[in-house]
Amino acid sequence: MIEIQGGVCAAKGFLANGIHCGIRKNKTKRDLALIVSQVPATAAAVYTTNLVKGAPLAVTKKHLANGIARAVICNSGNANTCNADGEAVAEEMSRAAAETLGIDANDVIVASTGVIGQPLDPTPIKAALPALAEGLGAHGDLAAEAIMTTDTKPKEIAYSFTVGGKECHIGGIAKGSGMIHPNLATMLVFITTDCAITAPMLQKALSADVVDSFNMVSVDGDTSTNDMVTVLANGCAENPVIDGEGEDFESFRAALRAVTVWLCRRIAGDGEGATKLLECTVSGAKDDATARVIAKSVICSSLTKAAIFGADANWGRILCAIGYSGASVDVTKVDVSFVSAKGSVAVCKNGAGIEFSEEVAKEILLESEINVVIALGDGDGCATAWGCDLTYEYVRINGDYRT
Amino acid sequence: MIEIQGGVCAAKGFLANGIHCGIRKNKTKRDLALIVSQVPATAAAVYTTNLVKGAPLAVTKKHLANGIARAVICNSGNANTCNADGEAVAEEMSRAAAETLGIDANDVIVASTGVIGQPLDPTPIKAALPALAEGLGAHGDLAAEAIMTTDTKPKEIAYSFTVGGKECHIGGIAKGSGMIHPNLATMLVFITTDCAITAPMLQKALSADVVDSFNMVSVDGDTSTNDMVTVLANGCAENPVIDGEGEDFESFRAALRAVTVWLCRRIAGDGEGATKLLECTVSGAKDDATARVIAKSVICSSLTKAAIFGADANWGRILCAIGYSGASVDVTKVDVSFVSAKGSVAVCKNGAGIEFSEEVAKEILLESEINVVIALGDGDGCATAWGCDLTYEYVRINGDYRT
Repeated sequence: MIEIQGGVCAAKGFLANGIHCGIRKNKTKRDLALIVSQVPATAAAVYTTNLVKGAPLAVTKKHLANGIARAVICNSGNANTCNADGEAVAEEMSRAAAETLGIDANDVIVASTGVIGQPLDPTPIKAALPALAEGLGAHGDLAAEAIMTTDTKPKEIAYSFTVGGKECHIGGIAKGSGMIHPNLATMLVFITTDCAITAPMLQKALSADVVDSFNMVSVDGDTSTNDMVTVLANGCAENPVIDGEGEDFESFRAALRAVTVWLCRRIAGDGEGATKLLECTVSGAKDDATARVIAKSVICSSLTKAAIFGADANWGRILCAIGYSGASVDVTKVDVSFVSAKGSVAVCKNGAGIEFSEEVAKEILLESEINVVIALGDGDGCATAWGCDLTYEYVRINGDYRT
Repeated sequence: MIEIQGGVCAAKGFLANGIHCGIRKNKTKRDLALIVSQVPATAAAVYTTNLVKGAPLAVTKKHLANGIARAVICNSGNANTCNADGEAVAEEMSRAAAETLGIDANDVIVASTGVIGQPLDPTPIKAALPALAEGLGAHGDLAAEAIMTTDTKPKEIAYSFTVGGKECHIGGIAKGSGMIHPNLATMLVFITTDCAITAPMLQKALSADVVDSFNMVSVDGDTSTNDMVTVLANGCAENPVIDGEGEDFESFRAALRAVTVWLCRRIAGDGEGATKLLECTVSGAKDDATARVIAKSVICSSLTKAAIFGADANWGRILCAIGYSGASVDVTKVDVSFVSAKGSVAVCKNGAGIEFSEEVAKEILLESEINVVIALGDGDGCATAWGCDLTYEYVRINGDYRT
């Protein structure tokens, strides 16, 4: 597997674009993205578990019922959620995109992200569609920009991999910075691949993947109403169609996982106001599920997040978060270390503090990527979760988001 | 029921004191509290559900096995948790207190609060005990001060009430500002009463009370390792002993609830870095349990807390928190209003936004006590939860707590 350029346009037969259509007041911020496959593609998706769901999710779910899609239309600046006319507007968006592209409205994935509870006027979207479609090209970067909300950096990645002797490509873009917490899809992620795979196997690969990728990311403990992850696979790589388990399916899964984990780390590291990526790796758990619960509890702890911001080796807060996680764990067997590019320092052994150099710990914790390594000595279960530190900037951003 | 002065010394037969013994470097900060009943008292307690438990909790639990206690010794500045010698030190603290007071060590409740994972040297505590005991008097205020950690204000309250024609008194002190999240007792609370009540009925009253009081408070979602709520009832009011359910028991429960709710509101309003008390009242739920889950989800939402800090009527975040709470709720029937001393403003009706004056909403949200009122239109269940806003100051306090 090799990292390549191109994001969602790295796979053959995919075009993208992103422009400013006017939903956002700031004219320099792109707010409308379009991704198109030149041929029909199989499609899969996972959606937020929040009972309050954005209207676009209901429409997308309906459109993907047949496992086929050709385009993604996504605006930022308004979530189109908790609006009485939400579904009608989402349908109108997909209809307008379909008409412009000359495809079926049922083959359009529609998504929105931004403020909840403000009516979304589709007029600027419809007016901008001709120019948006006109400019379609190898512009995954512009699409990645257009879906950003409070993200400080666009997030795009692509890899090449081999299936049945054919070179395939897979790429993805993501937006996600706040209102991010593991409970199925927790952000907007659009993935494209030219690998040939049936819709059921694509869905199987995606559903299995999110358990250890997007479900293990949390920025603030708030599970969004609008988030979804979609994959389009258009078969342009001309590999033998993956229609069951086996080596080819595993190759595809590995490539998908490379994309999702890369995006997870970027989303966490670009969490609202974040200065550091906080990774927690748990091993020695009774099983993987137990390891996941503990890893997530640690990266969700406000007190741990604030300590990491302050580069304070306050490991007691990590023990505390393990203890209240709800997982069954023998706290007298827990070891904890902090690891970063500067090295590692063990701070807790068998559930009790051990002597360590505060200076060394400080140096390690001042890095921008911190891994909290937890060994439970209780089995083979392991998991990794990704979060970020809690900072003044998080409070500033969210104290007055709507204005 | 009448609010009275005296805190934990309002009830007859209770004395208290608080001094600086030297656990904290700052000599102006009291760090050791003692509460004593002049006669043996029945006792009840609830403890944190965190699997990582402070050593004092294990010792207190053992001492309260017979339902009798006479004294509380509590230090701040060090939690005596995750230390290999923790229980031995907690036993030593209670033994020293017992010897000084001439009582049985089994009748001592011992508690510690502060940093986790730093060995607690009992020497300064033992050295200070004679002076601490010497100064015992109507000094509930000094005890309230001595148990504070990051609290900005001591928290004490007392009420008088009547049982069987006799005037009884009940008072309490609490410490709690960070690492506060509903899961049984979530802070240190010491309550004293001169009401005569058997140990089993006292425990029954306390266990029932915390479900709707301390279990409904959250500052930061982190469930502490050391928290407990204890009640001592010494019978000095000479009322007919409450040994079963009935009118007298209900009178006692009402008085207990007045103390606990008052302390809950103070703890939430004095949450680390808080500028506002955030109260969430849910009605019309299928049942009380559903209402509790929703009320807690709202006051725990980082995004809602940050919006309240910014006096931003961002009700979409409240709908979002209702949606991911895990409670079964029809989101198309949800009404939301913001209420404060300045009035009230309805912002959401039947799950969708309604027009409201942003100016009026701002004025309401600039107050220091904000109530988010949620009506679900689905039954008779109701609940109230208490939290606080999320501020820059929370991050500052917790970015470097240990130094």
